[in-house]
This record gives sequence, C-alpha cells and structure tokens, in this order.
Amino acid sequence: MKAVIFIIDGLGDRPNKEGNTPLKEANTPTMDKIAKEGICGIMNAVDIGVRPGSDTSHLAILGYNPYEVYTGRGPFEACGVGIDVKEGDIAFRCNFATVDENFVVLDRRAGRIKETEELARELDGLEIDGVKVIFKQSGGYRAALVLRGDGLSDKITDADPKKEGRKVKMIEPLDDSEEAKRTAEILNKLLKIAYEKLNNHPINEERRKKGLPVANMILPRGAGKVPYVQKFEERYGLKGACIAGTGLIKGIAKMAGLDLIEVEGATGTPETNFMGKAKALVEALKEYDFILINVKGADEAGHDGDYETKKIVIEKIDEMLKYFIENVDKDEVYLVLTGDHSTPIEEKDHSADPIPIVIWGRSVRTDDVEKFDEFSTYKGGLGWIKGKYIMPILMDLMGLANKYGA
Amino acid sequence: MKAVIFIIDGLGDRPNKEGNTPLKEANTPTMDKIAKEGICGIMNAVDIGVRPGSDTSHLAILGYNPYEVYTGRGPFEACGVGIDVKEGDIAFRCNFATVDENFVVLDRRAGRIKETEELARELDGLEIDGVKVIFKQSGGYRAALVLRGDGLSDKITDADPKKEGRKVKMIEPLDDSEEAKRTAEILNKLLKIAYEKLNNHPINEERRKKGLPVANMILPRGAGKVPYVQKFEERYGLKGACIAGTGLIKGIAKMAGLDLIEVEGATGTPETNFMGKAKALVEALKEYDFILINVKGADEAGHDGDYETKKIVIEKIDEMLKYFIENVDKDEVYLVLTGDHSTPIEEKDHSADPIPIVIWGRSVRTDDVEKFDEFSTYKGGLGWIKGKYIMPILMDLMGLANKYGA
Repeated sequence: MKAVIFIIDGLGDRPNKEGNTPLKEANTPTMDKIAKEGICGIMNAVDIGVRPGSDTSHLAILGYNPYEVYTGRGPFEACGVGIDVKEGDIAFRCNFATVDENFVVLDRRAGRIKETEELARELDGLEIDGVKVIFKQSGGYRAALVLRGDGLSDKITDADPKKEGRKVKMIEPLDDSEEAKRTAEILNKLLKIAYEKLNNHPINEERRKKGLPVANMILPRGAGKVPYVQKFEERYGLKGACIAGTGLIKGIAKMAGLDLIEVEGATGTPETNFMGKAKALVEALKEYDFILINVKGADEAGHDGDYETKKIVIEKIDEMLKYFIENVDKDEVYLVLTGDHSTPIEEKDHSADPIPIVIWGRSVRTDDVEKFDEFSTYKGGLGWIKGKYIMPILMDLMGLANKYGA
Repeated sequence: MKAVIFIIDGLGDRPNKEGNTPLKEANTPTMDKIAKEGICGIMNAVDIGVRPGSDTSHLAILGYNPYEVYTGRGPFEACGVGIDVKEGDIAFRCNFATVDENFVVLDRRAGRIKETEELARELDGLEIDGVKVIFKQSGGYRAALVLRGDGLSDKITDADPKKEGRKVKMIEPLDDSEEAKRTAEILNKLLKIAYEKLNNHPINEERRKKGLPVANMILPRGAGKVPYVQKFEERYGLKGACIAGTGLIKGIAKMAGLDLIEVEGATGTPETNFMGKAKALVEALKEYDFILINVKGADEAGHDGDYETKKIVIEKIDEMLKYFIENVDKDEVYLVLTGDHSTPIEEKDHSADPIPIVIWGRSVRTDDVEKFDEFSTYKGGLGWIKGKYIMPILMDLMGLANKYGA
C-alpha cells in the first residue's frame, strides 16, 4: 500500500454574502467523486482556533509537533534552497539590499536584482571567529544564510530595518547568554565583510553604470536554530518524496528527509504546471511509498483577495485529481485530499477556519458526504480532526501501525 | 469587529419522560433564527464528562485554564464583592453565624440577618501578627474575607461545621508547612476577636431585644490563594466588560480585568431585569470591544427542579436576544450564544451534559441547524467543542489571531 497527501494550499474560505466560497462554486466533479467514495471531515492542521503558517501546518500534517520542531522560518528556508543544514546550525532568511556608505538602506530588495549567484559565492564559505558561513541565493534578491559552529544561539535580533531610509540594524543578543552575544558579534562582522566584498564587485559596478541599485548588503532575519527532525522514513518506514513549487514547503520536506521531485514549470503560483505535477505524482508512486504534494495557487489567489482565480485554480486541481484517480489503482494507493489552512478571500491571509478533508482508498468507511466543500464534509465520518491524526490513520489503513498493547 | 459571549447559566437539560427539555419546549423564535443564521454545535466548557461550576466554566470560556487559575471559590467571591485582591492573598467565603458562649453554632446564617455592613466594618482593617484582615459583607449574612501578608497558605481547613448544634471548627493546617500553621493560628485568633467585637455590638443587642439570632461569629470556608490571572485586555487586546447579576461571575470578570457594568434590577434570579440587561448590552457595545453577559435565572430554576420557570426564563432571554439582534449590526458584532453548563431539572444541580452553542455574525460557515436546543445543534459545523476554543475562534473571526508560522 502507498499513500499520497495532497495539499491544496489555502483551500478553505469563508462564505461571501451569497453564502458561497470558491470551493463551493467551483466545478469539481472529481473532488466530489472522491468525497462520495471516501470518508470526509474538516481539519485544523495545528489545532482548533490556531491560524497556522504553511510551515507549521505541513509539519503537523506530516506528524511532527510544530511546537517542538518549528524554531522559525530560517532553517526551513535554508533547507529549501538546498543547504544541507545540520542540527544546531543557526539559519536565516536574507535579502540582498542597497545601502549607502553609512549603511542606510536605500532599497530593501536591491532593485529586485536577479544576478545574485556570483555575489552569494563571495560570502559562501567564509569563516569568522571559527564559525563557518554558508550562503546561498534562493531566487533573485532572496537568500539563505547559515552559521555553523559551536556556541551559537538564535536569540538575536534581525538586521532588517523593514523600511527604506533607516540604517541597517546592528544585531543584538536577545538574552544574556555568551552564545547570543557571540552570534550577534559574528553577524555584525559578516555585515561589514559583505559590504566590503559586494560594494565594488564587478556585478555591482555593472549595475551602477546602468543606474540600477546595487546589492551591497545583506539583511538577515528570522533566526532559527536547526532542530532535530526525525527522518520520515525512520519514523514511518515509508520511502517518501515531495512535489512542491515553493521553497518553504520544499524546505520542510527536505528537513523531514523526503526526496524532492522537481517538476518543470512548478512555480507555486496560479500559473503553475498543474498537469506536469499530476503526471509527476503518478510517476513518483512507482518509486516511492509516500508522496506529499502541495499545490500553492489557491493560497496565492486568497492572499490577493482574488475569488475568481482561486476558483479557477481549484478547478485546475480537480483536473489533476481526475488524472490521478484514473491512473492509480485504488486498491494500492490511499489519497488524503485536504488543505493546510484556509486563506479566505475577505481576509487575504490565513485563517483558523477548518479545511475540508477526505481520505479515499480501499476499505475506508464511506459516509453520506457527496460534495467536497466547507459546508458538506464536516458531516462526514472523520468529524473535526487535527492534522496530527492524519499520518496515524493512514498508517493504520495501510496495515503498518504498531499495536499498542496486546 | 466586536464580540459578545452570551451565557445562559445552566441552559442545558436532560429530556424528561416525554423527551422534552425546557429549551426544546420553550418558544424561542430568536434563538432559532440565530441558530439558522449561525454555525452551531455543542460545548463542554471545561471538558467532556466534567461537571463544572459556574466559576470554572466561565474561566474556561474566557480562555483561561481553570486547572491553573482556579484555586478555590474564595478569591473570586472576594473579588466579586469589590475587594481589590492581590496575587498571593488568601481569600475565603464567610457566613455570619449565631453561636453560644461555647462557640456551638445555633444558626449558620444568623437568622439570615440583613444589617451586616456595620458589623463587617468591625473586622475590616484589623491586623493580626502583621497580617492585614480585609472583610466585606456581600449581601445579608454572606461575606468575603481576605488575609494579606507574607508567609500565608490556603492549605487549611474550614471553620464552618456545616450543621447547627456543632462547635465552630478550629482551623487546622492541611500540610506541614510553617505557612499553613501560621495562617490557621491567625484565623483562629480572628474568630475569637470576631466574637468579642460582634457579640455585644449594638446591632446584635437590638436583635436580641427583638428575639432574633445575633451575628456574633464568622465561619470562613473555601480558602484559596489569589492566583495570577492575566488581564483580558493584555491577553486579547480587547477592551472588555461584563454584565452579570451574581457575585461569583462578577468576581471572575473582575479578576480577568473586565469592567463591571451594573444594571438596575439585575439580581441573578428568575425575576431579574431581563430587558434592562439587554439594553445595557447594546449600549455597552458602543464603548467596549467585548462583552461577557451572564443571565442566571435558568440555572436557579434548574437547581429548584422547576421545569416551568426554567422554560419561562429561557423565553424571556429569547426576548433579550430579539432586542439584541435588532439593535446591532451583524457585520460588526459576533455573538456566541451558549451556556456554562447544564442544570438538569431531574438533577437539581450542574451536570456534564454538553450545552448548545451557536456563533452568529459575518462570514461564519452557516450550517443546516434550524433550532437551538439539545437535540439539534450537535449536527452543526462546530461539532462538539470545548470552552477553551471559543476565544481563539472568535479572535480568528475578528481577524485578530496571531499567525503561528509563516
């Protein structure tokens, strides 16, 4: 038996004045068929009333306790861009930015510079006070930074002043520990080195000539100590992979030891390569026992308050699911179809509203639910469950759960 | 956005031989309308199978963990009668009682004496072994006592022998600590002082002349150390107030930092000023973000085993709700309508049976429930929830919940 957890990012919504949601209105014959054949419910990934990020919710759905393993966004971002982070590393998200000679930020994104790979290499591999600097760009002006060494702490402030016209903030320790003091000092040294190495770098000289903002500073934020995350295969005995377009989800998957399956044109946007992902999913099931697949577009549309696009994305995902159920053997694969959180159009952000969920596959206790939406699935056999129960239920359906007792 | 939690105290019931409950039989067109437009469920304030007091259930519904903050009834009673209790104070409920010269209790309520204000002043402000005595009557023969000072404990026995004809019980320490010993000693001294100061007090002399029982002793019970309770506004960022007729609920509200709104004729009985409370509620929403309103009459009727009165009280509350929904803007106010616990007629006491709940307001996921009673709302979209989830769900609906993760 194999299993797929299919996450429609930001799936749930709140009813508009007409009582509709994008999911309710979308034409989704396959989702409805899956709901009809499966066992349905509503789900909060972390807990009832908790408004989760995509990171904490995916961790919870994979069976990890986010309150234990989620130390901040840095580690997962760094992992997502391909840095082989190790337990104890301190990881940050970074922007390349433009500063003047007094470190006043002129552009927090350095004119959305694209050519940052070479600039990143200038910092990658440095050693400061015995601490190794690992630095990788992650698409344009974004980058990830990792400090590796003994005696480091994530209890430090951000460098990012959040607004142009303000000076880069010197990093300060957030507690009285030697580790925090030392980490702040190293980072402050790194900022100076970054300016020295980047300011007159040929790429920046070239940009100056063109009148473009230079990338002569880095702004680390979101420090997090890389936690111990038990590998998925060790935890469940399943060889697992992940199909996702966005770095954050990739980072979580990698941290959990899932292989990443890259799909041409999978962008994490409403224009992603939907069918490419569906085909990759079916293909990957030949090699893997477990696939986590995340499709991000509906969440993006929710953040934009774009009802119509959210509906269209859901309809495109319905086509992916059609391809999926037509190309797998229901006796061999379980499908969990759900979201990670709601992203209501009216909120333009995540909410704690629960998300529809259905488990589809051999011998599930089919209920009376006939439609996959916010107003139908709560009446199903799963009731209102938490994300942490998904993997145990799947393991049990697959006949792989350990017996507790005799 | 604003929010109201409307508690019909003791709301739920168990079906009688005909399968009816006061709520099911009552004519409640407004409650049913609210159920139809809102999202429904059933709720246990503390937990499934837990038979809560009004104190512990209200704490849970406000989002406090009663197992952490509930140290006994004393602190909340004292707070409710207007004593400005401080963390670490030891607080008690008290009766004025009648004793003979050997401290044998002749009347535990001193003939339900009413004129106790002056008597209370005799004890208020005393100092015994460096510990300050704060003493206030709380309506007739009832009073609240607070001991303030260092090295005190609530691990002591009650003075109340519970039955007439028995001697006042000397206070004993309940553990081996110096604090408990010292607190017991101080209280025993206070009992003697009380007798000395009260026995021949002019008010009591007057009563003796009339052949009425004198209030010449106090019987402290329910010792509790005043806990740290984070202020509601600090916790949720909402300016909150409470409308309630009974001292215990007022005490909980005050401890949580809610302002108390006094309503003429709000007595906490089936004869309370229902419409006065409804008007005060609508009025208070102009000034406050959050109102907790408690209407007690149905609980009283339940304790009396009085089916008919419970039904009538519920119908009067329905009129309050009619006034409410006609005088607030549904786009601006969320209403949570529920109870704190069931008080079944046949039990004449609280039970653990869950209570109907509905959340009404903008963009809630309306379900199929059309009637607000014990036999309908469990089919709704909230399922069976716990009190602790109410505030997080409200905060999320109001757009005020913190995101956990990214």
